[in-house]
Amino acid sequence: MSTNDCIFCGIISHTLSADIVSEDEFSVAFLDHRPVFPGHVLLCPREHFETLNDLPAGLAGPMLLKTQLLARAVETALGAHGTFVAINNRVSQTVPHLHIHVVPRRRKDGLRGFFWPRQKYENDAVREQIRSAIAREVERLSKNS
Amino acid sequence: MSTNDCIFCGIISHTLSADIVSEDEFSVAFLDHRPVFPGHVLLCPREHFETLNDLPAGLAGPMLLKTQLLARAVETALGAHGTFVAINNRVSQTVPHLHIHVVPRRRKDGLRGFFWPRQKYENDAVREQIRSAIAREVERLSKNS
Repeated sequence: MSTNDCIFCGIISHTLSADIVSEDEFSVAFLDHRPVFPGHVLLCPREHFETLNDLPAGLAGPMLLKTQLLARAVETALGAHGTFVAINNRVSQTVPHLHIHVVPRRRKDGLRGFFWPRQKYENDAVREQIRSAIAREVERLSKNS
Repeated sequence: MSTNDCIFCGIISHTLSADIVSEDEFSVAFLDHRPVFPGHVLLCPREHFETLNDLPAGLAGPMLLKTQLLARAVETALGAHGTFVAINNRVSQTVPHLHIHVVPRRRKDGLRGFFWPRQKYENDAVREQIRSAIAREVERLSKNS
């Protein structure tokens, strides 16, 4: 599926211009036009899926392998010390077409500390809530397969 | 491989305690002890790989599929509006054992804006540098396979 009003579908079909760095059967990667740092790449599946939750199982391997390739490449290309790989699902997601951010990082680049305003809390209840949700989701998936 | 001084290897082998929410053949997921928000989960491969760059190709599918399952589950369990999925590779990576953060998000939870201090720059040179690095990496991989 592709949607006419999706700018990433437009980039993928080459009807909108972008700085594409990689294309394959499953995905297209291009430079973010407002990068956190130069070399900030966005990787999209060719098909229009809104979030990671919607990605078909068969695309999981190809997408993470391409993410890995991009992480290695932006690190080498930009002479970076590491990378930051991220997906915003719905909240803070500006374009509703799944995209994986791959951002080159350097030590003391100013981002440390921004990401992790940490807090303490009681784990037990939350752990059990998540375990139950996983069990329900696994049951749902097994019924569908 | 497992390393004796890696705290995540310790959690995976159950020699260190943690709030584990999911375990399978390839991976273990547990609550971050200093979460961004309650329900913040870390997913690790059982084997000790330092970064995403080091993950063997065969684990890419299982790891992203489990990430997807966790994203769905923490959203349901915590009644969240979405999720944030992230990997710090080397820079800002506190434990050198690959871990994928899955963080429940809510609209107006205060994180928007922290993540993306954007900047403008000239794309052309960077695009070509990344394309070249991808080509070299693909050539290296094809020689090794």
